[in-house]
Amino acid sequence: MERETTIAADGVSGQRGPADHKRRQQILQAADEHFRLYGYRKTTLADIAKSIHLSTAYIYKFFESKQAIGEAMCWHCLGAALSEIGESIEQTKSPVEKLRRVFLGLEGITWRLLSEQRKIHEMVSVSFEENWESIARFREGIYQTIRKIIIQGREFGDFERKTPLEETARAIARMTELFYHPTLLDQVGKSQQEEALAVANVAIRSLTA
Amino acid sequence: MERETTIAADGVSGQRGPADHKRRQQILQAADEHFRLYGYRKTTLADIAKSIHLSTAYIYKFFESKQAIGEAMCWHCLGAALSEIGESIEQTKSPVEKLRRVFLGLEGITWRLLSEQRKIHEMVSVSFEENWESIARFREGIYQTIRKIIIQGREFGDFERKTPLEETARAIARMTELFYHPTLLDQVGKSQQEEALAVANVAIRSLTA
Repeated sequence: MERETTIAADGVSGQRGPADHKRRQQILQAADEHFRLYGYRKTTLADIAKSIHLSTAYIYKFFESKQAIGEAMCWHCLGAALSEIGESIEQTKSPVEKLRRVFLGLEGITWRLLSEQRKIHEMVSVSFEENWESIARFREGIYQTIRKIIIQGREFGDFERKTPLEETARAIARMTELFYHPTLLDQVGKSQQEEALAVANVAIRSLTA
Repeated sequence: MERETTIAADGVSGQRGPADHKRRQQILQAADEHFRLYGYRKTTLADIAKSIHLSTAYIYKFFESKQAIGEAMCWHCLGAALSEIGESIEQTKSPVEKLRRVFLGLEGITWRLLSEQRKIHEMVSVSFEENWESIARFREGIYQTIRKIIIQGREFGDFERKTPLEETARAIARMTELFYHPTLLDQVGKSQQEEALAVANVAIRSLTA
């Protein structure tokens, strides 16, 4: 996430006022800078307001709370992860390979975040702890991606068709959590490529049964 | 875990002095009471010592630290969970049913702990956060249980034999973590029987491929 990128906040909860307002972008860019330097927890709305010479009251015209700003930043990060995985699976026709890439992609992106953008990883951890809306949206994105791959695999005749689609897709989506949940990653403290591949293989074998 | 039960501390790290000493039991019982009432974090070694009229120095003859006491308590709890699951899978001959019982058993026991023994659940959370030895031992126990079930399933001809045993057992053991990790459970905040069953079914289908 470069500082110059537009931080899209549409569809994110706690947003107020006109979506494309320049001020909203200015606030989000200032928040981004603060969250990266000091972390989400230590930054206050007043810090953000002060840094761009606005009043806290003015910020409330665009965001309900600090969390609403956090939600926008968090979704910016998690939405980008979903896009990256979406692009990666577009590059192969094989449903088996696509599924593998979902697991490995999630593992890789999460690990990169932890090791290269520590403060953003911390903000994502808070969003999981506090069950922000962006997390539900992220999980739904993973579920939809996996559901589509399974449908395609069934159409191609690569995957079995007996098992209820929703149950299978939900269960496999759940299994990916082992490799993107920030708390688990903090506790494991290392890249888990091999483990992600092994769990992906369990999912794949269950589908090709 | 009843207060009158002996809290076995053998094989747990940070233990000192004679294993079967009455004092050790007395300290562990006092710690159990304190951890249940005030929680692991808020209890100090001095609190435990004071409640049974011992000096802190005397406690150090048996335990290296508060964590060493916590390890013993934690293993008492997690070891009991492993035994409960071991007994439950003994009651069926079917490897498929055994595997299902591992997932459902872990989910059920963890949920019971969270909802009925809040403070003990909190202590287990600390042990995961701080990567205590009892957690590694617990994970190893789950892995060994699953490994045995897969071997048996292969012998019975119920499970496929192509996939490397260790990789498969490790991956499926990893998948059970979704239902016993205290942080995940805190965040989900509800019993996950259905989800545990769905993920167990993915594991089972992968083995019967």
